[in-house]
Amino acid sequence: MTSLEHCQALDAKDPLRPLRELFSLPAGVIYLDGNSLGALPRTAAARVAHAVTQEWGDGLIRSWNSAGWFDLPQRVGDKIARLVGASAGTVVATDTTSINLYKVLSAALTIAAQDVPQRKRVVSERSNFPTDLYIAQALCQERGYELLLVEAEQIDAALLADAAVMMLTHVNYRTGAMFDMAGVTAMAHASGALMVWDLAHSAGAVPVALEADNADFAVGCGYKYLNGGPGAPAFVWVHPRHTDRFWQPLAGWWGHAAPFAFTPEYRPASGISRYLCGTQPILSMTALDCALDCFLAVQDCVPAQDVMAALRAKSLALTDMFITLFDERCAGYELELVTPRTHAVRGSQVSLARTTGAYAIMQALIARGVIGDFRAGAAADTGKSEGADILRFGLTPLYLGFADVWQALEHLCQIMDSGEWRDDKFNQKHAVT
Amino acid sequence: MTSLEHCQALDAKDPLRPLRELFSLPAGVIYLDGNSLGALPRTAAARVAHAVTQEWGDGLIRSWNSAGWFDLPQRVGDKIARLVGASAGTVVATDTTSINLYKVLSAALTIAAQDVPQRKRVVSERSNFPTDLYIAQALCQERGYELLLVEAEQIDAALLADAAVMMLTHVNYRTGAMFDMAGVTAMAHASGALMVWDLAHSAGAVPVALEADNADFAVGCGYKYLNGGPGAPAFVWVHPRHTDRFWQPLAGWWGHAAPFAFTPEYRPASGISRYLCGTQPILSMTALDCALDCFLAVQDCVPAQDVMAALRAKSLALTDMFITLFDERCAGYELELVTPRTHAVRGSQVSLARTTGAYAIMQALIARGVIGDFRAGAAADTGKSEGADILRFGLTPLYLGFADVWQALEHLCQIMDSGEWRDDKFNQKHAVT
Repeated sequence: MTSLEHCQALDAKDPLRPLRELFSLPAGVIYLDGNSLGALPRTAAARVAHAVTQEWGDGLIRSWNSAGWFDLPQRVGDKIARLVGASAGTVVATDTTSINLYKVLSAALTIAAQDVPQRKRVVSERSNFPTDLYIAQALCQERGYELLLVEAEQIDAALLADAAVMMLTHVNYRTGAMFDMAGVTAMAHASGALMVWDLAHSAGAVPVALEADNADFAVGCGYKYLNGGPGAPAFVWVHPRHTDRFWQPLAGWWGHAAPFAFTPEYRPASGISRYLCGTQPILSMTALDCALDCFLAVQDCVPAQDVMAALRAKSLALTDMFITLFDERCAGYELELVTPRTHAVRGSQVSLARTTGAYAIMQALIARGVIGDFRAGAAADTGKSEGADILRFGLTPLYLGFADVWQALEHLCQIMDSGEWRDDKFNQKHAVT
Repeated sequence: MTSLEHCQALDAKDPLRPLRELFSLPAGVIYLDGNSLGALPRTAAARVAHAVTQEWGDGLIRSWNSAGWFDLPQRVGDKIARLVGASAGTVVATDTTSINLYKVLSAALTIAAQDVPQRKRVVSERSNFPTDLYIAQALCQERGYELLLVEAEQIDAALLADAAVMMLTHVNYRTGAMFDMAGVTAMAHASGALMVWDLAHSAGAVPVALEADNADFAVGCGYKYLNGGPGAPAFVWVHPRHTDRFWQPLAGWWGHAAPFAFTPEYRPASGISRYLCGTQPILSMTALDCALDCFLAVQDCVPAQDVMAALRAKSLALTDMFITLFDERCAGYELELVTPRTHAVRGSQVSLARTTGAYAIMQALIARGVIGDFRAGAAADTGKSEGADILRFGLTPLYLGFADVWQALEHLCQIMDSGEWRDDKFNQKHAVT
């Protein structure tokens, strides 16, 4: 049986352990929900305060130049690019994941209409994050395409034979299962389809190699593993072979070649800047900019290693530890591991399914300071445990340790053994859970 | 000749004068660019710091419920609704003006395609803010519509005879000329066209009566006269007769009837919430929320008056004072007033055109702490002074006084009399001006 002492010893020799001090985490909390909202970087409060008081208050309109607000989407984008295997100048931070997906899926459909006009199908995973499917539904309806939703294991070359675009989320938000980006992209291309990736649960969590894996388009989230703060701007990447072929329909002035010429005719900026639309929320963007610097600190801890490779090694060690403790201690709780045991197809979370009671169990955990989250009705995702709900635990390598994982499992076991989760108070649902 | 003492006396008896203390303005600055970026409300620093440290840092994911992040777009929207003549529950604060325009113009075109399918034209003003025209261009191209751009004075019933939608900005960003919203909307409706208004330079600056004037759709900006901070979220209003007829194409999970049910099929929320798309930038939204409370303070100063009527009275007095001083003192400077003298068609700014040197003159003003801004090539807007550039002065009634206006004109006269604006240093252009 794995002991707390063993986990503490692992923490003591973890070269990334000092990174925890970069984050402000409340006392008494084990935070396993960084896959939903990343923790607060300690430097963010001062940086945002500076943006409010000095840049906005004193600099006023002049700060568009003097504080560098003007190219903040590009500068933040360049910091993200390094984490997702993209070149400088190919990513911008802007808008929301949903809106960026609309831009790239529009672009992909326009390219497909030119290159493979007979293909009228977009393929995605049925358990893709719903907002991706909603955006795709709207665009497919508008453009006369069929949106075909399938299970992950049904995706093969035959299915893609008449697809214009395949759109997938790299790491599944419920199960934590991860696609082989290189392999799936190659299959899509071999079949003649363009490949759009959503990196919401990948960026900052697992290594991503957009260019090496030859993806076409990608979007991702700023407020999960990138720790950019609530509702932080999202990001968008387009392979340079596509960028200048098309201007996306959200053709606002910030994507114009000369936004301050104020000409009535739209003329898109060259490169990824044409994926900008309107004025960006600078205070929220500043927090994201600041948060991304935490990734630079990884290099101080392990100078010889690639940042994302180092984080991946620790992430896998953390999820392995969670699974080991689950195997050792959770038999008889009617909990089922739905996250893959195979490293190559596992993201940075562990999800447990239970037919009943999952919501209340998570509420009981939260009451003890172990914050994960709950996702309802997992049947379509997991292919097992028909109708089971999910307890989701995000394991963020930047600020979590092995003893945190041990304590989380200890609380889970105590809750299951005592039956305290059956208390009525743990069954009152909130608006957001 | 109007004296500084006279202006100071007007300030002394101005019932709205105490509102100035709600804002943090740098010493030595006369800020006449609130139409581009509103000044910092004093309470915003503490409110945003609280959102960062307590809500994000300590509350973490729980703050979606406990700090009310979840319905912040609706709560902020309700505060804006009171300023634009809309009912509670009909406005949401979200995304950018450009993106919100895409949503409402999409909706308008979809409704028009059902109701008046033979009409294939969208009409707008050639000197509308360019991002509005870019968005309309993209949508018209996508949907097979023609975008017809005309001068403001050409808009009449005959022109609208085969228009599906007319889209106008209420107050022109360059000239400060304001349309008669009730009259123009009635003309559009009588002609069978839907009416979309952009309130970027109206909301918080002039009274707007969206419902009473029977508009169909409106969008507006959070960071100009609403003082929400750099890139603050924008807002969108849809007349209740249209809201539930159509779901806009940016159909993301925050506009879903049950976002946390995570169903693969999109089912739009009822009411204006379906105009939400993705997760909103909470830090930026918090600053906007805070800034809107400054408008409540107007009522403390003039309890018997409507908030926007009181602000309008002061705004007109300020722009009148600017124009009076311009008439008294600026002859011979080759500056031309392009803002209408008639109150009914004037927004809350004063714009001066000059064939040459406008950029350098504005830089010289800024160097003296008088911050307005410059807009190039005004020919298409003004119908006069072919090719003239514009010096733009926003007069925000919440935090400006009559002595500020006097001082601004005094500096302008000194700059023109001395010729100091001809110095080379004032001709070096910035990225954003």
